[in-house]
Amino acid sequence: MSKLVSVSGAPDATTSLACCQPLGQEELSAPDAERIASMFKALSDPVRLRLFSRIAAQPGGEACVCDIQDVGVSQPTVSHHLRKLREAGLLVSDRRASWVYYRVAPGVLAGMAGLLSAAA
Amino acid sequence: MSKLVSVSGAPDATTSLACCQPLGQEELSAPDAERIASMFKALSDPVRLRLFSRIAAQPGGEACVCDIQDVGVSQPTVSHHLRKLREAGLLVSDRRASWVYYRVAPGVLAGMAGLLSAAA
Repeated sequence: MSKLVSVSGAPDATTSLACCQPLGQEELSAPDAERIASMFKALSDPVRLRLFSRIAAQPGGEACVCDIQDVGVSQPTVSHHLRKLREAGLLVSDRRASWVYYRVAPGVLAGMAGLLSAAA
Repeated sequence: MSKLVSVSGAPDATTSLACCQPLGQEELSAPDAERIASMFKALSDPVRLRLFSRIAAQPGGEACVCDIQDVGVSQPTVSHHLRKLREAGLLVSDRRASWVYYRVAPGVLAGMAGLLSAAA
């Protein structure tokens, strides 16, 4: 398998989430809240959330953009949403031949789940 | 302690989140994605996320609106954000004498953390 790479300039999701204690334990600082709010914002669109959940639920953990054609929006819109998720640090992508493959960025699900825990 | 009540018309957060398998296990349906995206949307504003985290981190689990004066926004703005969090089913409120007290809605943190797990 080829190497998965984050898009240049995208935040490192693992680092973004490693900042913080669980919400039930410690109040977020203003800079941490800025960073984490941008991740929630990326998941606040229903189509984008569904795309994210589809990729997260793939048996092999990744989805080809060519397999994401049936979410009720155009292909350019799918690409736009996937780019937003990537820019928020939630997905990483990998181009192979003609297609781009997406997977959830390492540590994102565990990091967000940990953040939303009541306590450590 | 007086009874905590959800505001009339607000969704029941526990029910909203009980709908769904972890994202890493099963793709969200379109209606579930609509509901859950609205919860992420409520947390996608940095000030709102900080207010939520402050309330979640209270030792007794609740905060009086009178104690939330130092987040760099006006009191009407604080009230607006708290109302949005309540409408999204993330907080419940309770009026005692002159003050409104807020706490995280039961099951919300565990529900969101479970949803964001890689698998069951």
